[in-house]
Amino acid sequence: MAEKTTITPRAEDYASWYQDVIRQGELAEPAEVVKGCMVIKPHGYAIWEKIQAQLDRRFKETGHKNAYFPLFIPESFLKREAQHVEGFSPELAVVTIGGGKQLEEAYVVRPTSETIIGHFFAKWISSWRDLPLLINQWANVVRWELRTRMFLRTTEFLWQEGHTAHASHEEAIAEARRMLEVYAEFAEGWMAMPVIRGTKTESEKFAGAVTSYCIEAMMQNGLALQAGTSHDLGQNFGKAFDVKFQNTEKQLEYVWQTSWGVSTRLIGGLVMSHSDDNGLVLPPRMAPIQVAVVPIYRKDEERQAVYEAADRLAAEARAKGLLVEVDKREGYKPGFKYFHWEQRGVPVRVEIGPRDLAASQVMIKRRDGADKRAVPMGELAGTLFGVMETIQGDLLARARERMEQSTLEVDSHDEFVGLMAPITAEKGGGKFAMVHWCGSPDCEARIKETKATFRCIPFEDRHGGPGKCLVCGGPSPRRVVAAKAY
Amino acid sequence: MAEKTTITPRAEDYASWYQDVIRQGELAEPAEVVKGCMVIKPHGYAIWEKIQAQLDRRFKETGHKNAYFPLFIPESFLKREAQHVEGFSPELAVVTIGGGKQLEEAYVVRPTSETIIGHFFAKWISSWRDLPLLINQWANVVRWELRTRMFLRTTEFLWQEGHTAHASHEEAIAEARRMLEVYAEFAEGWMAMPVIRGTKTESEKFAGAVTSYCIEAMMQNGLALQAGTSHDLGQNFGKAFDVKFQNTEKQLEYVWQTSWGVSTRLIGGLVMSHSDDNGLVLPPRMAPIQVAVVPIYRKDEERQAVYEAADRLAAEARAKGLLVEVDKREGYKPGFKYFHWEQRGVPVRVEIGPRDLAASQVMIKRRDGADKRAVPMGELAGTLFGVMETIQGDLLARARERMEQSTLEVDSHDEFVGLMAPITAEKGGGKFAMVHWCGSPDCEARIKETKATFRCIPFEDRHGGPGKCLVCGGPSPRRVVAAKAY
Repeated sequence: MAEKTTITPRAEDYASWYQDVIRQGELAEPAEVVKGCMVIKPHGYAIWEKIQAQLDRRFKETGHKNAYFPLFIPESFLKREAQHVEGFSPELAVVTIGGGKQLEEAYVVRPTSETIIGHFFAKWISSWRDLPLLINQWANVVRWELRTRMFLRTTEFLWQEGHTAHASHEEAIAEARRMLEVYAEFAEGWMAMPVIRGTKTESEKFAGAVTSYCIEAMMQNGLALQAGTSHDLGQNFGKAFDVKFQNTEKQLEYVWQTSWGVSTRLIGGLVMSHSDDNGLVLPPRMAPIQVAVVPIYRKDEERQAVYEAADRLAAEARAKGLLVEVDKREGYKPGFKYFHWEQRGVPVRVEIGPRDLAASQVMIKRRDGADKRAVPMGELAGTLFGVMETIQGDLLARARERMEQSTLEVDSHDEFVGLMAPITAEKGGGKFAMVHWCGSPDCEARIKETKATFRCIPFEDRHGGPGKCLVCGGPSPRRVVAAKAY
Repeated sequence: MAEKTTITPRAEDYASWYQDVIRQGELAEPAEVVKGCMVIKPHGYAIWEKIQAQLDRRFKETGHKNAYFPLFIPESFLKREAQHVEGFSPELAVVTIGGGKQLEEAYVVRPTSETIIGHFFAKWISSWRDLPLLINQWANVVRWELRTRMFLRTTEFLWQEGHTAHASHEEAIAEARRMLEVYAEFAEGWMAMPVIRGTKTESEKFAGAVTSYCIEAMMQNGLALQAGTSHDLGQNFGKAFDVKFQNTEKQLEYVWQTSWGVSTRLIGGLVMSHSDDNGLVLPPRMAPIQVAVVPIYRKDEERQAVYEAADRLAAEARAKGLLVEVDKREGYKPGFKYFHWEQRGVPVRVEIGPRDLAASQVMIKRRDGADKRAVPMGELAGTLFGVMETIQGDLLARARERMEQSTLEVDSHDEFVGLMAPITAEKGGGKFAMVHWCGSPDCEARIKETKATFRCIPFEDRHGGPGKCLVCGGPSPRRVVAAKAY
């Protein structure tokens, strides 16, 4: 069976393009034998490791410690928090048989761990001295999904979930906001993916939260991607799991909790922020390989000199901290190798052949579009280092520009309906509509009739303060983001 | 309910001691609401992170790449390899309900991933050019266990599983042996836990392997702990999952595979290699905190000067790469803090008070036993660095000595039965009996009547070559290790 090796152009079918980029970039493939699951292939997993390394460092710097809680959760635990069970029940995978026997109480495979962690927090916390308790877990979770897309929505996914307990609501809110900012800075500074920081509406918040905060990114097709969330859980889980502490006035009080997470979904966001019709484009800070060196030679006697120069230049670049691969595969033409590294999103390609050797130069080619140019060998490592910074900045600037150009202030409901109607994940054309909303669930329901949702109420109002609700004309404190989303 | 805070002496009940050390060291606790599972607490998880960092680096240096495969495996997959299903069937957790519906085919929660990975290898491999394929996965696995012990045997555990495919049996065997040696060097060089490298007998090998290799360590109570295994899978899974490649002669051939893994069980081995009746003892290379600095002061006016000196000394030690914690918790006496860090296995404690300040010195105390001694402040960082190396070496030497002293050559079956009879995990007194064995399953069965098993046939014969089988008197090529084990 011949496999497809080309990439559908974005303009033709954005959804197919996305799948093609992931396949040709060897990031992942659907695990068709396990419904809705995927295999994360080495190149995709290497990106996840970069995400993990960066976030883990930031979590530790902000005082969090990693721990690990059971994969299985007694089914009864989920029922203790009314909204939580309502939100997650339809998505559960349930273990009913263990060691050959029917279980007395079934276990659910964790869809998230607030409940099981709440149970242990109750054992660990007794005094204000035990607070704040700042825990993070790197884990797999399972949510039974009907419609899946690699990375963006899969039945099993990898993520981190922070779970913290505090002595006051103010402290918990500050924690939830702090971690959202950690996510936002990582998304923008490392993934070159601009995000809007904001608050979820009541109908969109996490099942069991008092308030959910989120970062929302815009993909190339204009659809929104919720890239990270952080929840102020109030005392909801504290009450459900009886997590009490003696405060400094010696009174018993329920703890105030937060939870926050990002997942392998970020990789989907990364793909859809920068890639093009030739395949994956990665910002240098997220690229497992930043420089691919392709040696060029026709005759065997040329090979040794070219290889030696390639190895020497690679060593110099590595000494600057760059991740370099010299492609010495035999039996492949340079053009094949260019294509190979292009599809894998390597930010810069270096070509070196006998004529370059003679001229003491190499050719470099940026993955994100600029023409090839010659660089003197002695300047290569320094040049590459600078080019990485430039690419990183350019990708962020381009993504920002796209988001700004596709963000509109919309003031009429008819106009809003007309704007949203043709938008699909396949055809693209998505927009962020900044609309006034009175805050009522009824008006939000009207918005949802278009299949768009309120993505968030931005922390920062860049759209002129109060106005009148798009639907009912009632007073609105500020514009909110409405968009179709993944 | 008052919790126990003391540690049962080893001589009284080794099994209780083990649990007490883990509890007081805050490594883990049983997750009593999820049968046979545990919570790995931050201090325990930090040790796991050190294990991961070291092994992951070694795996990458030997050419392996990380990937991630689904948690769920179609039940039918396990049945394709006859020995494999027989070995794992009794231990499976089975998901029968997903998204509120009974599943048409149940999924098992992976007990190990040979089958699902075999399925994908078949898709990825077609030519000798695709080989070797060297993959590793960090993951959780589930094996339904009736009798569990924290870290040593839990229903869910964390591990890594390497899975590789090769063009020849020789290459696969070399890979399996190479990775066993990676494990052995890590166990000895970093965990200070000496191991015997060897081959499993037919009855003890992995379900589905041609040959299993292992490293076996001896715990303080003389019981054996299988600390890591590496399997030559031959073409068994290649045939079960139709993983074929075109060899250089253009003929189709099944691939030769290996798998190898270590788990959170290693943490149990670490605990039982070095700890004492005062709690956890960690070799410096595995200690998340290597130096605990305890400032001592009576009057508030002394505090600032002591804190400043402590911070400065800590900074100097950190500059040498040491992991230092300055314990500034208010309201706790120095004795409480000593006890705290002792129970957590911190290799060296530094005490600094006003009199030390005056004398420009500090007191240092090794966790592994030697007396306190004074060190001039200016020499502290260098001294600590050297002390870490000394402790690391001393712990390994002590563990080696213990293993040698508890290893006996046994030549009579009666003597062997008498030797093994009184040994239990609680009472200890375990020995490695080096016995001659003819290789027959019948004689092995007689050995197993004592509840001891053949741990391995050592690669290196340190016990004098051939002899006569302990049971039947038949010819034996070399002595093998028989012991009671975890």
